[in-house]
Amino acid sequence: MFLRSIEWLDGKIRIIDQTKLPIKLEYKFLETIDDVVEAIKSMRVRGAPLIGITGALGLALVAYKLKDEDRDYVIREIKTAYEKILNTRPTAVNLKWALDYVLSNSIDQADVAESIIKNALKLMERDIEINRKIAEIGQILISDGDVIMTHCNTGSLATVSVGTALGVIIEAWKRGKRFLVYITETRPLLQGARLTAFELKYANIPFTLICDSAVGITIAKKKVNKIFVGADRILLDGTTYNKVGTFQIAILAKKFNVDFYVVAPTSTIDIHSKRRDVIIEERSKMEVLTIQDRLITSTDITVYNPAFDETPPEYVSAIITEKGIIYPPYEENLPKIMQHNTT
Amino acid sequence: MFLRSIEWLDGKIRIIDQTKLPIKLEYKFLETIDDVVEAIKSMRVRGAPLIGITGALGLALVAYKLKDEDRDYVIREIKTAYEKILNTRPTAVNLKWALDYVLSNSIDQADVAESIIKNALKLMERDIEINRKIAEIGQILISDGDVIMTHCNTGSLATVSVGTALGVIIEAWKRGKRFLVYITETRPLLQGARLTAFELKYANIPFTLICDSAVGITIAKKKVNKIFVGADRILLDGTTYNKVGTFQIAILAKKFNVDFYVVAPTSTIDIHSKRRDVIIEERSKMEVLTIQDRLITSTDITVYNPAFDETPPEYVSAIITEKGIIYPPYEENLPKIMQHNTT
Repeated sequence: MFLRSIEWLDGKIRIIDQTKLPIKLEYKFLETIDDVVEAIKSMRVRGAPLIGITGALGLALVAYKLKDEDRDYVIREIKTAYEKILNTRPTAVNLKWALDYVLSNSIDQADVAESIIKNALKLMERDIEINRKIAEIGQILISDGDVIMTHCNTGSLATVSVGTALGVIIEAWKRGKRFLVYITETRPLLQGARLTAFELKYANIPFTLICDSAVGITIAKKKVNKIFVGADRILLDGTTYNKVGTFQIAILAKKFNVDFYVVAPTSTIDIHSKRRDVIIEERSKMEVLTIQDRLITSTDITVYNPAFDETPPEYVSAIITEKGIIYPPYEENLPKIMQHNTT
Repeated sequence: MFLRSIEWLDGKIRIIDQTKLPIKLEYKFLETIDDVVEAIKSMRVRGAPLIGITGALGLALVAYKLKDEDRDYVIREIKTAYEKILNTRPTAVNLKWALDYVLSNSIDQADVAESIIKNALKLMERDIEINRKIAEIGQILISDGDVIMTHCNTGSLATVSVGTALGVIIEAWKRGKRFLVYITETRPLLQGARLTAFELKYANIPFTLICDSAVGITIAKKKVNKIFVGADRILLDGTTYNKVGTFQIAILAKKFNVDFYVVAPTSTIDIHSKRRDVIIEERSKMEVLTIQDRLITSTDITVYNPAFDETPPEYVSAIITEKGIIYPPYEENLPKIMQHNTT
């Protein structure tokens, strides 16, 4: 029931080009660091966990080509690549986490290049394991007869496979639970209408698509009782950064007493930053002014296009991670779980 | 600064085909009752007041062709046309109001056909007067330095000219007040990105376009302090039916202590219905699955596409009409203003 969104094939990265979905399921090979940077920036790969893995494999790509080179040279080139990749997108924290994981576990090894490849591949496999664990833990929260809503895409296409919030939903269905699913189209890039729709069809799960403007009436009239979303960054106090639109869904959820769950691996938890440190990425106005490369209005229009928004912890019913379900007070319970973090 | 969206030219109706905006400013003549029905259903004309006027002129179209016919025959044909037009769209109340106004003021006249034409034209001119009055009254609520948000299109293109909520905003600007304007794109049919953007450019007022998913972060981070929306129907208790997305904006407004104003002529006030009587129109799934006729995802997807939603009165700071600004308690103050309604 789960797609595989990224693979390592003999020194190349093979991704699904997500800008082409669902019209075409097109694979693309990334062979240079510039390919990797372009793929992340233009959102051929997206989703915080998948961005992290793509970045890690980007380091592996560089290492692979330098296998027989001098140690210092390898380290210098890897550090240059690290900077290039890190600067692609500012909000998700998994990217830095993944790059740091690969680098810090490799730099002291005898064969740095080999070690970087090994650690990047390990991280990719671990992403699947972690997501399986999250899905297994999270599906407990879903019951027969639920009416579930999700936003953006948080499935296999946002990770290596399985997914986070959507993984939980698909896992519950796989285990025989039956419920309704509403998905938001998620403008501007339509990750819901394109990617989540694609994944739910792939998993044979019925669902209903709504516009982002219809979240309020859908929660009110269709009796939505549970909402599952992913996260690009979670602060230690529980503040959650996720796809723009999440914040208003959270406010509506609270208003209607709907459970609002954030689903993410612990690599999404940023133990260092405060709210003031987090940069919310603003993307090109052309994302709003065009839909799939077609202009919807004039180009000489000013646009505010934040990619993410900030949901305060009081709106989050629980955070589902591979280490378990974390309930408020987050400022107490999140640091606790992070202390035991061995990854 | 104001466009003219509909005119009566020698027995024909000339409209702006709003489905073509802003790419093309294309006029279209409606010459038969079927043309009128098609134009309303396919939203070449839209906006509650404009739908009402188009319907009234539709009756005039029939009357014009029957000028020399037998009285009973004219009445029979007009009543058939009345039913056809009334059934085009179920939620806005202005359409029934306009048709009833024309019919009831004409049916007892010596020359029914002539009287229908006269009353329809009178209604069209009165729409402009009423909107001028609304704009004049409403602009008082806007101050220099405000940060204003509006949803959908409620300008000249939603009426004969001037508009309701957008008319208020444009009028305030015309009088020299300076403020920021955020407009929502308003999926599925993008009335904000297409029509409101077009009108604000026409009036030379700077504005910023956002996706419907960005309402929450925009209110929170850009310090929006006033929201103006139109209405397709207002019940005597203040319950407001308007373009889908209005309800969630209203909830966000309350959450952030933002003034939330509904702007509409008193013809929008439905003195008969209760909430249970109001049908919220659900439109074709293709509106969501395509954007300007281009498919954004697969066609075999289930969609929930309500055209409107219901905003309870506790979210509405005030209702601005041509009779003045009405404040809560609406169940007391709305009937009062409607008793003095002479139109």
